[in-house]
Amino acid sequence: MRKFLSGLALSILAIPSLAAENRLATPNDIVEAAPATDWKAIAPADLMVMDLAPDVKGKPRRVVIQLIPAPFSQGWTQNIRKLVAARWFDGIAVVRVQDNYVVQWGDPDGETPGKAKPLPGGLTKVPESEYITAKAALKANGGSDAYAGRTGFEAGWPVAGDEKAAWPTHCYGMVGVGRNLSPDTGTGAELYTVIGQAPRQLDRNIAVVGRIISGMELLSSLPRGTGPLGFYETPQERTPIVSVRMGNEVPGLPAYEYLSTESTSFAAYLDKRANRKDDFYIQPAGGVDICNASVPIRVAKK
Amino acid sequence: MRKFLSGLALSILAIPSLAAENRLATPNDIVEAAPATDWKAIAPADLMVMDLAPDVKGKPRRVVIQLIPAPFSQGWTQNIRKLVAARWFDGIAVVRVQDNYVVQWGDPDGETPGKAKPLPGGLTKVPESEYITAKAALKANGGSDAYAGRTGFEAGWPVAGDEKAAWPTHCYGMVGVGRNLSPDTGTGAELYTVIGQAPRQLDRNIAVVGRIISGMELLSSLPRGTGPLGFYETPQERTPIVSVRMGNEVPGLPAYEYLSTESTSFAAYLDKRANRKDDFYIQPAGGVDICNASVPIRVAKK
Repeated sequence: MRKFLSGLALSILAIPSLAAENRLATPNDIVEAAPATDWKAIAPADLMVMDLAPDVKGKPRRVVIQLIPAPFSQGWTQNIRKLVAARWFDGIAVVRVQDNYVVQWGDPDGETPGKAKPLPGGLTKVPESEYITAKAALKANGGSDAYAGRTGFEAGWPVAGDEKAAWPTHCYGMVGVGRNLSPDTGTGAELYTVIGQAPRQLDRNIAVVGRIISGMELLSSLPRGTGPLGFYETPQERTPIVSVRMGNEVPGLPAYEYLSTESTSFAAYLDKRANRKDDFYIQPAGGVDICNASVPIRVAKK
Repeated sequence: MRKFLSGLALSILAIPSLAAENRLATPNDIVEAAPATDWKAIAPADLMVMDLAPDVKGKPRRVVIQLIPAPFSQGWTQNIRKLVAARWFDGIAVVRVQDNYVVQWGDPDGETPGKAKPLPGGLTKVPESEYITAKAALKANGGSDAYAGRTGFEAGWPVAGDEKAAWPTHCYGMVGVGRNLSPDTGTGAELYTVIGQAPRQLDRNIAVVGRIISGMELLSSLPRGTGPLGFYETPQERTPIVSVRMGNEVPGLPAYEYLSTESTSFAAYLDKRANRKDDFYIQPAGGVDICNASVPIRVAKK
C-alpha cells in the first residue's frame, strides 16, 4: 500500500485553523475538518448491542458491533439476526482470550453433547464459497500486500481481493464466526474479535461478519485465558453476556456515522496516515497497511 | 512478503510423528521439531526483568524484556543499562494504556518541573540519525511491504530497510523509547510496548530498543486509560513498577532461547506461516506480514 495517492491535490489538506497555528495537519485534523456530507449514517438495524455483565465496580459494559453489509457474509449475518431475535446470545459468555489474537464468545457448553444450548430453527448452513464474493470491480485504492493482490476501502470497510473476487480483511476489532474444522463454516452463534496484529491468514478461511465500533477496550483488556488457545480454565473467569439486541431495539442508543471511504476527506486521511510529517514525525513512512488505517467512526454530531 | 520461499525443499517439513497421525504440519509443529542446534541462547545480561506490583489477588507480575543487539539503537540501550544500574526504574509506573496502540511506563511526574525524578549522570543524548543503521547487506528474506523496500529477519529480530539502511520494526510486543517533539530522541527512561496492529509509521521516528519475551499479557490486558492518548487520569489507576533488574542479577531466572532466523527450521516456519494448509485452513494466504510471524522464543529445554 505504497504511495497510493501521489497525485492528491494539496488544496484539500488546507485546514484554516492549522494555518493559524502554523502546524501541519494530522490524520485526526483531517477527520475533524471533514464536511458533514462526507459522513454516512450507520443504520441502527445493522448494529448489535452486546451488554456484558457490569465490571467489579458495578460499571456497565456495552459493546456495539456493526454487521458487515452486502455483498459480504450475508448468510452468516442473517443467521446472527435470527439468533438475536431468538435472544439466543443472552446468557452466553466470553470463553476465550488469547493474547495478540482473539477474544471469543459463545455457549460455554457448546461442545458438550446433551448440554449445548439449542439453536433456534431456520439457521442456514453457509458454504465455504461464501468466504469470498465475485466482484471484479474491487477498487484497490490500497494497492497490494502480502496477503492479496488488491486491497482497499469500500463502503466504509477494508477489503482485499484479486482480479476476480473480494473478501473482508481480519483487522483489529473485526468480528468473525468461530467454526470447527472444514467444511464446517460456523452458524454465527460463536463469534470472536481480533485483539492484536491482523491475523490475515484467516481471510478466506473464516467469515468476517462485522466490527466493533464502540467498547472495544472492554474486550481487549480482559484477562488472557491460561488454557490451550487462551480458553478460560474455570467458569468464574468468563465474562457473562447479559443481552444482545439489535440497535433499533435499544432506546437511547447514540446515532453512529462513518467517514465515507469514497470521500475526498477519506482519501486525504489515508494519504496523511501514509505520510505523517506533523510535529512528532520526522520520516514519513510512504505507505500504510490496510489494517493500520481504521475507517473513522464516531457518534453523530447533532 | 509474498511467496518468499517458493523453492523450499519439502524434506525439511517432513516430521515423522505427523506422518503417523496423517495430518499436515502447523507452524508450531515445525518449531517443536527444530533441532537443538537451531536454537540460540539469549544472554541473561541482555534481559531486563521488570516486576510490577502484584495483582489484586496478590499474584506476582513479572515482565521480561530482551534488549536489541548491535548494530541497532545502542545509544539508547546503553542508557537503559545505566538506568537499571542506578535503580532508576524502581518505583515508577505504567502511566498510559491506549487501545490498539501502546502501554507506556515512566516517571508519572516526569513533565512536572521540580517534581521529576532526577536522571542518573552519564546518559547519552542520542541523535536522530541512530534510528537507522547503515547496512547494505539487509537480507530481505521477507520481501517488501507498505513501509519498506526490504523486510526480513536477522539475528532473531524483524528488520526493515532499503538499499542503504536498516531499522527495527514496530511489531506487537516490541519496546520503544518515548520522547518529546523532534529533535528530542528520548533517553530511555520512558518506554512503551506495542499492543495492537503494528504502528509501523513509528519506524525511523522512534528508537526500538527491545521486545517483551515473557509476561506480555500482563501489560496488554491492563485497563485502558481514559485521558487523552490513553493516559490514566488518576494515580490510583497506574500500575506500580517495583523493580527492574538485568537478567544476570536475578537468581533463578529461566534461560531463554530463540529460533535462529538463519536456520532451515525458521525458513520452514516462515513458509508455513505464509502458506497454512493444515486441518483448519482451506485457503493458504501465500504470504505473511513481517509482524505476523513472531520469532519463536521459549524457556530453554534442559
